Amino acid sequence: MATNRPNSGDTATLLISCPDHRGIVAEVTHFIFTYNGNILHSDQHNDDETGTFFMRIEWDLKDFSIKKDKIAQAFEAIAEKFKMEWHLEFSTRVTKMAIFVSRFDHCLWDLMTRQRSGELDAEVVCIISNHTDCQSIAEYFKVPYYHLPVSRDKKAEDEARQWEILKKHKVDLIVLARYMQILSDAFVQRYKNRIINIHHSFLPAFIGAKPYHQAYSRGVKIIGATSHYVTADLDQGPIIEQDVTRISHRDTVTDLVQKGKNLEKMVLSRAVRLHLDHKILVFGNKTVVFD
Amino acid sequence: MATNRPNSGDTATLLISCPDHRGIVAEVTHFIFTYNGNILHSDQHNDDETGTFFMRIEWDLKDFSIKKDKIAQAFEAIAEKFKMEWHLEFSTRVTKMAIFVSRFDHCLWDLMTRQRSGELDAEVVCIISNHTDCQSIAEYFKVPYYHLPVSRDKKAEDEARQWEILKKHKVDLIVLARYMQILSDAFVQRYKNRIINIHHSFLPAFIGAKPYHQAYSRGVKIIGATSHYVTADLDQGPIIEQDVTRISHRDTVTDLVQKGKNLEKMVLSRAVRLHLDHKILVFGNKTVVFD
Amino acid sequence: MATNRPNSGDTATLLISCPDHRGIVAEVTHFIFTYNGNILHSDQHNDDETGTFFMRIEWDLKDFSIKKDKIAQAFEAIAEKFKMEWHLEFSTRVTKMAIFVSRFDHCLWDLMTRQRSGELDAEVVCIISNHTDCQSIAEYFKVPYYHLPVSRDKKAEDEARQWEILKKHKVDLIVLARYMQILSDAFVQRYKNRIINIHHSFLPAFIGAKPYHQAYSRGVKIIGATSHYVTADLDQGPIIEQDVTRISHRDTVTDLVQKGKNLEKMVLSRAVRLHLDHKILVFGNKTVVFD
Amino acid sequence: MATNRPNSGDTATLLISCPDHRGIVAEVTHFIFTYNGNILHSDQHNDDETGTFFMRIEWDLKDFSIKKDKIAQAFEAIAEKFKMEWHLEFSTRVTKMAIFVSRFDHCLWDLMTRQRSGELDAEVVCIISNHTDCQSIAEYFKVPYYHLPVSRDKKAEDEARQWEILKKHKVDLIVLARYMQILSDAFVQRYKNRIINIHHSFLPAFIGAKPYHQAYSRGVKIIGATSHYVTADLDQGPIIEQDVTRISHRDTVTDLVQKGKNLEKMVLSRAVRLHLDHKILVFGNKTVVFD
Repeated sequence: MATNRPNSGDTATLLISCPDHRGIVAEVTHFIFTYNGNILHSDQHNDDETGTFFMRIEWDLKDFSIKKDKIAQAFEAIAEKFKMEWHLEFSTRVTKMAIFVSRFDHCLWDLMTRQRSGELDAEVVCIISNHTDCQSIAEYFKVPYYHLPVSRDKKAEDEARQWEILKKHKVDLIVLARYMQILSDAFVQRYKNRIINIHHSFLPAFIGAKPYHQAYSRGVKIIGATSHYVTADLDQGPIIEQDVTRISHRDTVTDLVQKGKNLEKMVLSRAVRLHLDHKILVFGNKTVVFD
Repeated sequence: MATNRPNSGDTATLLISCPDHRGIVAEVTHFIFTYNGNILHSDQHNDDETGTFFMRIEWDLKDFSIKKDKIAQAFEAIAEKFKMEWHLEFSTRVTKMAIFVSRFDHCLWDLMTRQRSGELDAEVVCIISNHTDCQSIAEYFKVPYYHLPVSRDKKAEDEARQWEILKKHKVDLIVLARYMQILSDAFVQRYKNRIINIHHSFLPAFIGAKPYHQAYSRGVKIIGATSHYVTADLDQGPIIEQDVTRISHRDTVTDLVQKGKNLEKMVLSRAVRLHLDHKILVFGNKTVVFD
Repeated sequence: MATNRPNSGDTATLLISCPDHRGIVAEVTHFIFTYNGNILHSDQHNDDETGTFFMRIEWDLKDFSIKKDKIAQAFEAIAEKFKMEWHLEFSTRVTKMAIFVSRFDHCLWDLMTRQRSGELDAEVVCIISNHTDCQSIAEYFKVPYYHLPVSRDKKAEDEARQWEILKKHKVDLIVLARYMQILSDAFVQRYKNRIINIHHSFLPAFIGAKPYHQAYSRGVKIIGATSHYVTADLDQGPIIEQDVTRISHRDTVTDLVQKGKNLEKMVLSRAVRLHLDHKILVFGNKTVVFD
Repeated sequence: MATNRPNSGDTATLLISCPDHRGIVAEVTHFIFTYNGNILHSDQHNDDETGTFFMRIEWDLKDFSIKKDKIAQAFEAIAEKFKMEWHLEFSTRVTKMAIFVSRFDHCLWDLMTRQRSGELDAEVVCIISNHTDCQSIAEYFKVPYYHLPVSRDKKAEDEARQWEILKKHKVDLIVLARYMQILSDAFVQRYKNRIINIHHSFLPAFIGAKPYHQAYSRGVKIIGATSHYVTADLDQGPIIEQDVTRISHRDTVTDLVQKGKNLEKMVLSRAVRLHLDHKILVFGNKTVVFD
């Protein structure tokens, strides 16, 4: 298993969303202060349209007087009072990540070298592919590689095998690194807001197949890439990150593909990193990203 | 009439498109050399898909031995041989530009101050608007301002009046600086590839009305603006220039509108400048931009 | 006087810097909550190198139970406890801004049209120039224009006259919109962290005169602009905002100047807006920008 | 040896610089046309300051009636007439590239995966390092790895050994992929305009050691990376490519280093690709980049 984590200290992070209400920040910060926690980062957002309050607060656990496994319980009263949806994350708990890949290897290389250099706070516990092309990369990084061919008429069966592997490795997060296969609704539901995809266009432009061909044909002057959580609707999930690059009439479809690969790598790795650092809150079909 | 031109010397520019064929560049450059022209800029492009050749070549007329009004005639033989579509433009002939505007004034201010500073090689011969809001700007810059209210049921009549004004001022180029009104097909046809619009989204995403609302609702992380030639199909014409800017969950629709205004100004003025400098060739629904 | 303010409600903003200490956030938010304030924005930062804590917190005054003119007094105890340097700003108090300009008018146009459209929450109370070129712009926007020629040998006298005008108009903020004159240390000291300059390079590259010529001569592929608070050391003050644009070997110095003008406008207006919205904290020679 | 070349057909490319003179383009294109060559790309530039003309012209050799090894000879007359400095390059001749690396491996990974995917038209014939850290990467890609420790007092000896290896592998181009060692003038002179370095700042800002620390200390809002040909003067050689990324007060030096790694990879690989595709002409201390 590939493990190489940045030294991020021993911290707790609360991710909160709830109906907006006077006094939330005061109570949450008072809670942390009362038990001797030192706030390292605090960010909040009010969505005026829906009257929703969002908060991310991270504090140092060094002198915190509640033990890790009792913090959630202690916080429960405040959470109930304000009708919060909330998560509590610890920096010492490393996210177990599975990478799904097809034949294109650029995003896989990019994720693995970033993980290796300590940029991504995760263990890559397995790589799953419908092809064998990327096997040697897995071997180099000493990550188990599962070659699972898929076919349209046996989707349920194929996914059952994938499911076994994910269970075996206790996978927290699935990254589709140009996997190019559509997952079933049931599968997606099990990993709600925990499957990150990279789509090779500036969504919502050029949804679906062959976006670079679509972009070429429309004659756009800029192309993009979009990383989003996977939902039942193709390329419609909550957008985490996007980026673009300039093209010209000189660029063929092949050039777009090549320029796009740079975008895909950048955008996917940024989105994965934001997820691993617990900086994303999903609401409706949008994201709040506390970067 | 507002006139303030950059000193661009006395040059001729040929814009050529034709079926690709060996020897075109050699003959065109030989033609210029034979008559003692000094080539200042030359750019070419082959579209492999359609087998089309594009060229823009600009030369100094100082010692050129053919008079301006005889150059086209002299070039005709080469043009016919290679079945060229071509234009001949002279730097000494200033483009007469009309600006159509509604109530938003940011693009009008931007175009007028750039024209005044010599950045845009054009005369602004008139401003046409369905509102009176921008009248004082026209007065400041001493440009005739025509207030022509429009109504859905009298479109033909309204356009007839616009047409009179354009004829009177011998308008070469129409710039829709957030005009917000749809022109009839007949009107568009008369000014084919000579009407430039700014659409406040990254086309083809968010076609039609209220693109900033659409962008907000989809939760994109980047917004854009697109400048294109107007065709009969709304927001579907050949794209000249695009640009984008980053947004976040903190940005309300009002913020998007404000950030977008910066984009609109930049993108529209760049597109207008490329047109004025004779750097754009349209083919099919795309542009070749020799910048 | 040109006044056209965005509707930003009735809010108070605290800007705080102090030695980092447990419990600051808890106490500040508790203070606001106690008196029935609703927090709209809260941002904080810890500078680990110097152990300094920074905070910007803005709350709605609608139901706040302390009157505006008593808030500072009420907050004093907390401020003293944590040894804070702090400001209290009210959204209803409009900043009085003076613009200094020389012959280049692009930044002046840009600031005035943005102010007019409600993008900048300020009154432009006067324009001061050592030339008459921009007088008609001031007239259009109905802002008093003072033509004050300057000469090296009478600097003290010249500044005394400027000083009179600033006093008369109760100026809060001076914006040097390509003013091109160096202010004396005494003058700068009186408006510490309240004079914003735009330098036409990507500082610290190309300090001093003719930065576009320097950039051309070095053969860089990107040029920039930098907005900073003015200090006694030329082009060395705390940087507020920077931006860049790509150039190529085709760009002459004249092209750099023109591309640079776009940058200068964008960067200066963003910096001014951040200042007007009370989003900047200066520490040492750096800024914390809570955008 | 790692070889995986994009299919770029069989073409010849002429790179020309000479005193500007009427008729150069006509003669060069006539030469190609006479011998039945089809021009694929042609780009030119006039440097008005020095009166120098630059040209890059690439043509298809399919039906060209002069054999490859006779083209130079045939062109000689034109070259002499116009006093040209010129190179003739063939797409079928693959550049032999050596990569020098120290302990940081991100640029090496990036170059190797791009070369492997066909993005870089080169053979990586050897990797030379003063450390052993990157040995396993070389093994994975099956490229000879030479571990050559260096010391200040034996520079000549160290370089002699490097020189042997370069000779043995017939190296055309040296890429310093964060090599962090200064090469002697004699060494640099032997590979004039054939050593590409990546400097981790936006030159000319932050020359020399620890540029990210310098950037942090100055409080800039944007950091950059610069790729340039190595000359005798440290970080002063002709700039090929630069790029930048935005930072904020939240970024520590460690964050700058990480954000900078992305820039370094992008900028270095673009510069190397431009060199491999024969798109760079050096004049004085600047480059003409025909991209």
